Amino acid sequence: MILPLGYRYSAVYAGIRKDRRDDLALIVSDGPASAAAVFTRNLVQAAPVKLARRHLKKSGGRVRAVLINAGNANCATPNGEKAALETCRAAAKQLKARTEEVFPASTGVIGVELDQSLILNALPALFQALAPHRFEDAARAILTTDTVPKIATREVRLKSGVVRIAGFTKGAGMIQPNMATTLGFVMTDAAIHPRDLRRILTRATERSYHRISVDGDTSTNDTVLLLANGASGVKASESVETALCELMEDLARQIARDGEGARKLITIEVSGANDNDSAARLARAIANSPLVKTAIAGSDPNWGRILSAAGNAGVPFDPSRTTIALQGVTVCESGVAAAFSESDLKTKLTPPDCTITFSIRGRGKGHARFWTCDLTEDYIRINASYRT
Amino acid sequence: MILPLGYRYSAVYAGIRKDRRDDLALIVSDGPASAAAVFTRNLVQAAPVKLARRHLKKSGGRVRAVLINAGNANCATPNGEKAALETCRAAAKQLKARTEEVFPASTGVIGVELDQSLILNALPALFQALAPHRFEDAARAILTTDTVPKIATREVRLKSGVVRIAGFTKGAGMIQPNMATTLGFVMTDAAIHPRDLRRILTRATERSYHRISVDGDTSTNDTVLLLANGASGVKASESVETALCELMEDLARQIARDGEGARKLITIEVSGANDNDSAARLARAIANSPLVKTAIAGSDPNWGRILSAAGNAGVPFDPSRTTIALQGVTVCESGVAAAFSESDLKTKLTPPDCTITFSIRGRGKGHARFWTCDLTEDYIRINASYRT
Repeated sequence: MILPLGYRYSAVYAGIRKDRRDDLALIVSDGPASAAAVFTRNLVQAAPVKLARRHLKKSGGRVRAVLINAGNANCATPNGEKAALETCRAAAKQLKARTEEVFPASTGVIGVELDQSLILNALPALFQALAPHRFEDAARAILTTDTVPKIATREVRLKSGVVRIAGFTKGAGMIQPNMATTLGFVMTDAAIHPRDLRRILTRATERSYHRISVDGDTSTNDTVLLLANGASGVKASESVETALCELMEDLARQIARDGEGARKLITIEVSGANDNDSAARLARAIANSPLVKTAIAGSDPNWGRILSAAGNAGVPFDPSRTTIALQGVTVCESGVAAAFSESDLKTKLTPPDCTITFSIRGRGKGHARFWTCDLTEDYIRINASYRT
Repeated sequence: MILPLGYRYSAVYAGIRKDRRDDLALIVSDGPASAAAVFTRNLVQAAPVKLARRHLKKSGGRVRAVLINAGNANCATPNGEKAALETCRAAAKQLKARTEEVFPASTGVIGVELDQSLILNALPALFQALAPHRFEDAARAILTTDTVPKIATREVRLKSGVVRIAGFTKGAGMIQPNMATTLGFVMTDAAIHPRDLRRILTRATERSYHRISVDGDTSTNDTVLLLANGASGVKASESVETALCELMEDLARQIARDGEGARKLITIEVSGANDNDSAARLARAIANSPLVKTAIAGSDPNWGRILSAAGNAGVPFDPSRTTIALQGVTVCESGVAAAFSESDLKTKLTPPDCTITFSIRGRGKGHARFWTCDLTEDYIRINASYRT
């Protein structure tokens, strides 16, 4: 795996979650990295989200280390803000950095006090274990109900040299546009000004993390952080945006595919809407319909539910000028049933990838892609007993 | 059962659905009844919804008969509008009424052609069987995945005499504020002007059918119809509104309780919001959260999910001035965990009724009640194979 230069990673088990899996991860950039982040739009925000915002502001968008724990969201507790601050302060001390150069993130259960001493006690071992190749260990430590780690890397050849990008992320449940319990960390060794980095991240997020949905819930802890430490010696800005977008799309798709209980990745393509925003709203309405998602789980080409879900998007379109295809097979033409073999299509819907195409004629060129997953009994099983 | 005077009901099996249960129902008012209706807000509207609107307009809000079929939504098919019109015309002929005095409604699968000959052939037997006491037969014939018929009756003593109200409804899935596959028919023998009736229905719907949610989906066929035929000889208007509201709330609650796969009715009470509308939006966000609904299914007092769901409502409130109670037990006080016995509360969450109270301090007097149900594996099982 080709990783960006100048980053080291680490993970340990600090005792925050019950099962003995690593639950504390650390990313350190050898030099200060430019940083940009997007956060949850939930009104209820976890302590690390509030602190991370403050730190980015205070440091002028410079980050030396990222401290992430799983097993506890550090949200809605009396001492959460103190725990977030104290652990960042201790990590900064180890690094001889300023407290605001440490970026905190948490994921896990809400409303249970995070015992900061667990993290403080684990910090020496965490720093001890730092190494450039421990990237995947860190990627594993942040997982909650995810079944697989989610990693993507890219190498980009620019005129001025080669830069590398690597990212890891977690998802599983509470995923929704606006990024529910999503944590994502993307590192590059390109040199990018924090202001450019913010612009790039905003656009890339719009096309990736804001285009996925598992259950329509949005969490209190969502954070996607982009770091650029310049260790490659190559200056870049818009030139890496395409690669970065692709990488973030890749990570986002991995989240949708591994949604809680999911067996299928559903890709929704909407075209012909008034504009891209309308297309995205239509795609989102289809993606968030439990009836569509259960039909796909059952390999049932029930296109009426797709049309009905789109009708709830609050976006004007003419059903009688709408075509719907499943796996490339047209099931609805001009708003009414098309001729197709139900049994053939049922077979085509068996694989772990499903594409829904929703095309409108005669309105515009608005286009959007959106990813979600099917809704299965396992989603319920996982979520009826998450805490216990 | 005390039923309103001057109505007769009937139901037969016309062969629209596969299993041999009645699938065609008829309500006839002996004289023309004042009528008001609310319909789905889905952009995609079934043929009977479009026709019912036109008929109400053309007749000036007068209805003689209501013709309802289950097993087919009569939506998104080439000949749907013709089928709706032809069947109304035939029913009108039987009654010697005008076509626009027949109000159509359908529920069932979308996108499959409704074979109008099945209804036309069944009409003679349907009219033959009309009788005042066949109310419950009609109530049963309109059910789809509902497990029980949903009926409510009231007798109201006014100064000027006694009037009666009776209603039946169906729900099960695709239920959401704005009324997904909900059909509701409420009859009274009070004499009420169509204009007053519309006003009463709008207000009553706001507090009943628009305050329930099963899965957040909204269907193409939703219809709630209110008829007032004056057969009691008692003039009324606002004087019956309270009773009518209660009856419609009762019907709406029955829908939520019998949501697809549901084992529990969840009542959500929000108080202290800026205004009633904000309170309703908070309640709806909590009601529509799959994570809240699965937690209740698992009797898990996971209040963090409730707080997080409320945080996504797009309504301003201060989490640190928020109290959440489950079954009357405070689980979150001022935005953080309250002291409660987890095992005691788990036991209290076992019964089929669950109340979530969400109280905000220091903002306003906005209040709302909302009903939903838990989300269980059975919801998935029912919906992964609805058509097949």
